[in-house]
Amino acid sequence: MDAAYFRHTGGAGAIKFGKLPVPGLPETGRVLVRVAATAVNHVDTHVRSGAFATELSFPQIIGRDLAGTVEQVGPGGTAGFLMGDLVWSNSMGFDGRPGAGAEFAVVPAERLYSLPVGVDPVEAAAALHSGATAWLALHRHARVQAGETVFVGGGAGQLGSALVVQAVRAGARVITSSSAADTGYCRSMGAEVALDYRSAGLAGELADAVGTLSGGRGLDVHIETSGRHHLEAAVELLALRGRIIALSGMAATNMVPLGRLYTRDGSIRGFAISNASVSDLTDAARAVNVLLSAGALQARHITRLPLRDAAAAHAALEAGTNRGKLVLIP
Amino acid sequence: MDAAYFRHTGGAGAIKFGKLPVPGLPETGRVLVRVAATAVNHVDTHVRSGAFATELSFPQIIGRDLAGTVEQVGPGGTAGFLMGDLVWSNSMGFDGRPGAGAEFAVVPAERLYSLPVGVDPVEAAAALHSGATAWLALHRHARVQAGETVFVGGGAGQLGSALVVQAVRAGARVITSSSAADTGYCRSMGAEVALDYRSAGLAGELADAVGTLSGGRGLDVHIETSGRHHLEAAVELLALRGRIIALSGMAATNMVPLGRLYTRDGSIRGFAISNASVSDLTDAARAVNVLLSAGALQARHITRLPLRDAAAAHAALEAGTNRGKLVLIP
Repeated sequence: MDAAYFRHTGGAGAIKFGKLPVPGLPETGRVLVRVAATAVNHVDTHVRSGAFATELSFPQIIGRDLAGTVEQVGPGGTAGFLMGDLVWSNSMGFDGRPGAGAEFAVVPAERLYSLPVGVDPVEAAAALHSGATAWLALHRHARVQAGETVFVGGGAGQLGSALVVQAVRAGARVITSSSAADTGYCRSMGAEVALDYRSAGLAGELADAVGTLSGGRGLDVHIETSGRHHLEAAVELLALRGRIIALSGMAATNMVPLGRLYTRDGSIRGFAISNASVSDLTDAARAVNVLLSAGALQARHITRLPLRDAAAAHAALEAGTNRGKLVLIP
Repeated sequence: MDAAYFRHTGGAGAIKFGKLPVPGLPETGRVLVRVAATAVNHVDTHVRSGAFATELSFPQIIGRDLAGTVEQVGPGGTAGFLMGDLVWSNSMGFDGRPGAGAEFAVVPAERLYSLPVGVDPVEAAAALHSGATAWLALHRHARVQAGETVFVGGGAGQLGSALVVQAVRAGARVITSSSAADTGYCRSMGAEVALDYRSAGLAGELADAVGTLSGGRGLDVHIETSGRHHLEAAVELLALRGRIIALSGMAATNMVPLGRLYTRDGSIRGFAISNASVSDLTDAARAVNVLLSAGALQARHITRLPLRDAAAAHAALEAGTNRGKLVLIP
């Protein structure tokens, strides 16, 4: 079968495109999936480069997320999956598991979810990673409540928009930042305030918006997606029991005013979806499926590329030259 | 009645000792307590100085913690309290409530707890604040589990020793730091490793101890009681899902390596017992009573002073010239 894989960690050029054997009959509890689409995420580049230390099995097929069709199930049937079912997964390609960037992938049944009727596999693949990450951020780590005030830094991005949509659905009042051109898009998703992140008066505008929306209580949840953190300012804006969620900024090091943090019962909670348990991923998948069914979770721009362009896709994502979400088609 | 109070926030000299009216018959749901002992905590000095912004009612009687005897209960009886019962409270003297530093105090019944049989009120008063704070730190905020590895910075202090004792009882493996003279005391409380905090090789010794006790996983819980934080080192030591609890260091500002924090699902969770709900305080009180009954929660040194010396006691605590826990006796 066609596959995009690497034999050692390294730059984007380490990815080879070529033939690998089709996996044999799946074992009990596993499902052979014919891959329709696999997304390219930043985390995929970290796995490939070795920046994210995880168990790899060379030749390691790239790719975490897939949408596709059940080709064959393991002996004894597997968790209700039948041949021809549309399915997806978002935890392949690391921790010893083969990747999604091939014509076929063998997926553990507990990491496989049904794709809701009527949802296009390519559009799903483009939205899975951000959708599940945003759900974990808001519900598992921030434990957002209806009526709370939430700031999302970078609301027009892939992850940012998933956060805005899901925070609004959770009943939160949402403030976000984006380029001036995207503030309308952010408001269309339900953000009550969308600030131009290039504004010279951004700090003051944010403080004003927080004061107004929260009735002076402060921010309950602060999530910055850009990796450019200003924790001192974030801590200053926190409400009692406010939570700062850290999920971006590999190289970021920031000053934290601990006195202000602890006297307000504030916290900084970091997480990476790579650490999520099967049970957390399943809960996230349930929520993602509800959103996909409702058409509420959509990558804004999708660039489809043939799987043979995987190395170029990684290079483009790392260089920041891609527009929208890159999806590889085997 | 004799009382120690202040008419405006300020230095220790703002505390006056003199006569104030005995509170009248308590209202429904309130209990008039004859105070046997009230502790002097750092937070009491912050309330008095105004550094801790909270609602005060002048003349504001000082003091958060009390142990004493029920003198009279509000109409209709109150939550099972009877005249003559030994009781304690640890949330007076702020948030609009009168303080404990007087011959009598009216305490809301939901903030009053029975003192276990055989426990000396002065010894209880000396241990309440640290005992409840440590319980909230370990169980409400760190959610410590049996088998986890916990570091307590300053294990020989009032709060540090309460943390060591309670972490050990929770089934954790405990590493602590103290002066060289106190390492034996720390081990006697159950700490497996007690490091001299003045050792030139402390960082390496701590890393070694963490590696050994955790089997290479890292620290599950890190709590520094001294207010002198080294968050970069703490984050570096964290296990997957490790928690740094921040509860000291009003003026501390620290560098946090966010990349390391979030890729390990690490968190920094701040709290102050002043923010605890009645329900959290009640849970903590239940645990404190179990420890008091068992003789497992004891201030190491207690200095008893008459209530008239309240101003001097605050000044000594602020100057760091006191030895052991200061308890005022009305």
